[in-house]
Amino acid sequence: MEQVDLLLTNALVLTMDKELHQYEPGAVTVTGDSIVAVGPESEIRATYSAVQVMDCGGKVLMPGMVNAHTHVPMTLLRGLADDLRLDVWLMGYVMPVEREFVSPDFVRLGTRLACAELIRSGVTCFADMYYFEEDVAKATAEAGLRAVCSQTVLKFSSPDADSYEDSLAAARDFIQRWKGHALIEPSVAPHAPYTCTPEILRATAQLAAEFDVPLHTHLAETSLEVENMRKENGMPVVPYVRKHGLFDAKVLAAHCVHVDEGEMRTLLHAGAGVAHNPSSNLKLASGIAPVTKMIEFGLNVGIGTDGPASNNDLDMFEEVRLAAFVAKVSTGDPTTVPATTALTMATRLGASALHLGHLTGSLEAGKRADLILVNLTPAHNAPRFRRDAHNAYAQVVYASKASDVSDVMVNGQWLMRNRQLLTLNEAELLAQAQEYAHRIDTFLIEREQSVLSKLVALGGSIEEESFEVQIKVKLADPAPVQEALRRPEVKIVYQRHYHQHDNYFYFSDPSQGRLRYREDEFIGPKGEVANSRARLTLIGTAREGGFKHNVLLSRSRYLAPATNSLRFYREYFKPTSVVPLDKVRLRWLVNFQDTDFYVNLDHFENPNLGDYLEIKSSTWSRSDAERKAKLATELITFLGGSLRKTITRDYVEIAGKKKGIR
Amino acid sequence: MEQVDLLLTNALVLTMDKELHQYEPGAVTVTGDSIVAVGPESEIRATYSAVQVMDCGGKVLMPGMVNAHTHVPMTLLRGLADDLRLDVWLMGYVMPVEREFVSPDFVRLGTRLACAELIRSGVTCFADMYYFEEDVAKATAEAGLRAVCSQTVLKFSSPDADSYEDSLAAARDFIQRWKGHALIEPSVAPHAPYTCTPEILRATAQLAAEFDVPLHTHLAETSLEVENMRKENGMPVVPYVRKHGLFDAKVLAAHCVHVDEGEMRTLLHAGAGVAHNPSSNLKLASGIAPVTKMIEFGLNVGIGTDGPASNNDLDMFEEVRLAAFVAKVSTGDPTTVPATTALTMATRLGASALHLGHLTGSLEAGKRADLILVNLTPAHNAPRFRRDAHNAYAQVVYASKASDVSDVMVNGQWLMRNRQLLTLNEAELLAQAQEYAHRIDTFLIEREQSVLSKLVALGGSIEEESFEVQIKVKLADPAPVQEALRRPEVKIVYQRHYHQHDNYFYFSDPSQGRLRYREDEFIGPKGEVANSRARLTLIGTAREGGFKHNVLLSRSRYLAPATNSLRFYREYFKPTSVVPLDKVRLRWLVNFQDTDFYVNLDHFENPNLGDYLEIKSSTWSRSDAERKAKLATELITFLGGSLRKTITRDYVEIAGKKKGIR
Repeated sequence: MEQVDLLLTNALVLTMDKELHQYEPGAVTVTGDSIVAVGPESEIRATYSAVQVMDCGGKVLMPGMVNAHTHVPMTLLRGLADDLRLDVWLMGYVMPVEREFVSPDFVRLGTRLACAELIRSGVTCFADMYYFEEDVAKATAEAGLRAVCSQTVLKFSSPDADSYEDSLAAARDFIQRWKGHALIEPSVAPHAPYTCTPEILRATAQLAAEFDVPLHTHLAETSLEVENMRKENGMPVVPYVRKHGLFDAKVLAAHCVHVDEGEMRTLLHAGAGVAHNPSSNLKLASGIAPVTKMIEFGLNVGIGTDGPASNNDLDMFEEVRLAAFVAKVSTGDPTTVPATTALTMATRLGASALHLGHLTGSLEAGKRADLILVNLTPAHNAPRFRRDAHNAYAQVVYASKASDVSDVMVNGQWLMRNRQLLTLNEAELLAQAQEYAHRIDTFLIEREQSVLSKLVALGGSIEEESFEVQIKVKLADPAPVQEALRRPEVKIVYQRHYHQHDNYFYFSDPSQGRLRYREDEFIGPKGEVANSRARLTLIGTAREGGFKHNVLLSRSRYLAPATNSLRFYREYFKPTSVVPLDKVRLRWLVNFQDTDFYVNLDHFENPNLGDYLEIKSSTWSRSDAERKAKLATELITFLGGSLRKTITRDYVEIAGKKKGIR
Repeated sequence: MEQVDLLLTNALVLTMDKELHQYEPGAVTVTGDSIVAVGPESEIRATYSAVQVMDCGGKVLMPGMVNAHTHVPMTLLRGLADDLRLDVWLMGYVMPVEREFVSPDFVRLGTRLACAELIRSGVTCFADMYYFEEDVAKATAEAGLRAVCSQTVLKFSSPDADSYEDSLAAARDFIQRWKGHALIEPSVAPHAPYTCTPEILRATAQLAAEFDVPLHTHLAETSLEVENMRKENGMPVVPYVRKHGLFDAKVLAAHCVHVDEGEMRTLLHAGAGVAHNPSSNLKLASGIAPVTKMIEFGLNVGIGTDGPASNNDLDMFEEVRLAAFVAKVSTGDPTTVPATTALTMATRLGASALHLGHLTGSLEAGKRADLILVNLTPAHNAPRFRRDAHNAYAQVVYASKASDVSDVMVNGQWLMRNRQLLTLNEAELLAQAQEYAHRIDTFLIEREQSVLSKLVALGGSIEEESFEVQIKVKLADPAPVQEALRRPEVKIVYQRHYHQHDNYFYFSDPSQGRLRYREDEFIGPKGEVANSRARLTLIGTAREGGFKHNVLLSRSRYLAPATNSLRFYREYFKPTSVVPLDKVRLRWLVNFQDTDFYVNLDHFENPNLGDYLEIKSSTWSRSDAERKAKLATELITFLGGSLRKTITRDYVEIAGKKKGIR
């Protein structure tokens, strides 16, 4: 009789090995961190004597689930903001909060909270990607879970690095220190093709190859990503990253929602693993990954939850069920991705996708003892049929819940017994997490109190407030203005021609001001659109003052480049109404009596407001403003404008009045 | 101070009323079966004094979920067979088992088991459709749940009725007896347009209208249903049922996966409710219902689990999350069906879809006290944000689990406290359910032991075994046979011309015999396909005997009309190989020496086997067989066949040999 540490008996053993061996009653023996034997109970009992024998009470004994792609510290952002489009969610909420709060402390707490949830739901191994990844690794190892921990590298500054060189160096240090750890496989994560430069893709792949650790990335998550990639680089996502050397490393590619068969072949030949994230892809409306095809091709497709801020949980029982469901509906074939395939994806294939197939993912002699017990007897899973060899898999996939997991072992160590966590103090974690949530709430609530602070929260270079002297008249005919500009009293510094497309956002509280989204199209000498630019301007309500003849000292303004779409800002700022305004503007910078002025000749077509002449000049003091106000009056008269026709209302007020808005 | 029976305090009250009022801390008062008041705790405490006060510990207090479409007794068939196409699942497994096992006892037990699961997952009301529905009603009322119980009526015989008239009469009796019950709304369920005649649609609608009870049905579940409807009746499903008077009743229509905008308008004007069943529609690959559009139209769209044999559970937390998910992915819009909408569908809209909106579905004064407590503090739902008024809804929809429901009250009565069921003995139910499963397993395992018993299990008229005398020769040229048939020694009774498309199923155990799926195309006088017919023939392995000159007494055979597709039989019988065989057959029934014979002149094109002449005659005794064997030999010689070229192998054996199969 061979001596072992532990003998698990009286179980329905689902090995999840290649032949899907199952034993009932089955038994498993464990010594140290590893599985010694798996088989029918009678055989195992006849061969092994154990220091400790544990009766599994007829439960399912199977390998723990492998969560193939997640961002565990984001448990602290769970439910922060939902039902938003990806960009609004990410740039409007998640990134501003991450910039403010993400720290080693945040990351360790988030990881511990995630580990509690992961253990409770039967996960024994996961692949993570976040910032301060070494802290993720520390917290994970303390909780006793197995993980691929991938340090994010991207072309922007991030909560843990000012530049990509910094995060790449941090990744190298981390990998050097942790390589060979019993539980943690250190790794590097170039975030995605569209957030990395070719240089980053190549450098991270070389780093991963140098240390023979996995490289973790996001590939082809949305159709927009693929569309942009084709537009900008003339090829789909997978060939692009191959071109830049990514497959020099052993890759774990998350999502792969929009990949074609050629790309699947490339992934296969590169030995890459794929992480399928059904909840996240559904919730963010990214699409449904072609899993049936990928499995047919022989790819190692695992299943992941993605981050708990876009899921909103880490429940692999839900994911494995969804993996089966979405494959069926997207192919129209209810027989595709049956329970056996889905559960294999969540265990053995997932481990292989993480390049840890030699260590975990199935119950086989020599592999690490990463295993769970699942109770199939609750009311929601009764009764049990045995006719078909696949009945038990269907029970686990289609009716089991995370809460049916009673016991979890990783690397030979129990992390949960009878639903009691053994390595984490859950009550303490919950209290600390709630404190963070309170601080984040306070930060966001404060920010959301004004349009200005929401604008500032987006980041980017908000310019200083600007003040202008301005005067405006309605014209019956713009031709005389252009003639007058040719006279020697006016020196023209330069001339511009634009189409300006404005959208004014109004808010229920008028004191918030108006937010203008302007797209300038610069018209070139041949009438072509030579260039374009989008800007946001927050226009305060209060006019600073006025002068004779309706010369105004303009409102306070905040300017910011508009890097996102009009739709983004509409969903982010949630205006009560939006007024569009399109005009053709001829603009001159002129020097008149030794003073610079902008002369704008504006023609409105939509709505049809006619022609206007506007004179503007920047100013910085009351006396300067008074002097310029007087000169502006002279200039407008010189250009043929009638001082009796000057107006103070903004164009959008004229347009709004015409449309009956405000 | 007004006196009430019960005051629930210290809750996050989500009323799910039209304005989505929420109160925190909120309170609810109950007297008898009804809600007296809902509001901020301070206001409620100032107005009411209660016999009993219960502190909800900060949990969510909300209306119970409404499961808008299910078949509760089918809990006893959960996991019976999965990952199959609808027809194989239904006709191959579910219906044979139902024919054998469904009884009042089965239905009561299944309902009680379902009620345990429903209560545990926070459901307070459901809409059921099954057989012996009065027994469903009894068991439900005993468990204390609210339900619309709909007696199925369909054009076939069913486990509880030999004819539709019987089930219609049963429905009438049931409705008469139960109308006005505090918990049960009796109802009638014409199963679906394709399983009912126009007469049934009209009769059930009139019955429902007469008693002003809901009518529950399945509409437009699959694209095949819609396709067939258009082909057979020239219109989509909704106009068809309207034409046959279905909307004279207040309708609850399950599925509506494949309805267009015109049909949505019809449903709206008819005041019909819709039950959306995301899990079932995904798992059976039926498609994704256009919920965003239906909600925009103002339809009352509830959410249902469908039966637990096609889901495989009754978990409304999973369904509500999926309702949000699938709407997003199918529209490409992550903002559609946000958490508030999904949860409204699962509560207030669901109650309205069941035509019980006046009684339940929201926490409002005067409605019945149907409410649940949900704990938002488990690790998988922490932390909690409060910035957005919708944060709590997102927590319930995107991260809560059925197991987070701690307490359930229906009609003012507690059914669960601290996860302890108060009206059902769960252990007893589980044991009884397992007994049924064991009996069903035995039945199916026995059946699956032979191809014959699987064939018999499909039902339909299996014909008796048949015996034939037969002789067959290969021909170099078939023309002389046709000439010989014109001679007076042979009297031709009739002549037929077919194309015969055969598929032979082989099984790993040769003693099972071969199953032939034959499609006969009858060719008319102008060469057109005049008619077609499909038949299954199970051909035994043993030849019964032989005579001189290779005359055979044929194998035992079982015949059945093939009402399902070739694909169905392939998936149901799972042959190890399938051999196709196509031939053109000219067949004559002739009288030769006062005895009837079939003369077959067969020409094989695929595979190219050439021409054969076959003589057959039915027989019933050894002496009759001997006489016919002798006559057949004479006839084949008369027709020009050479007795030296007779063969005993079946065509498929010749073809299989040619192809190297077997």
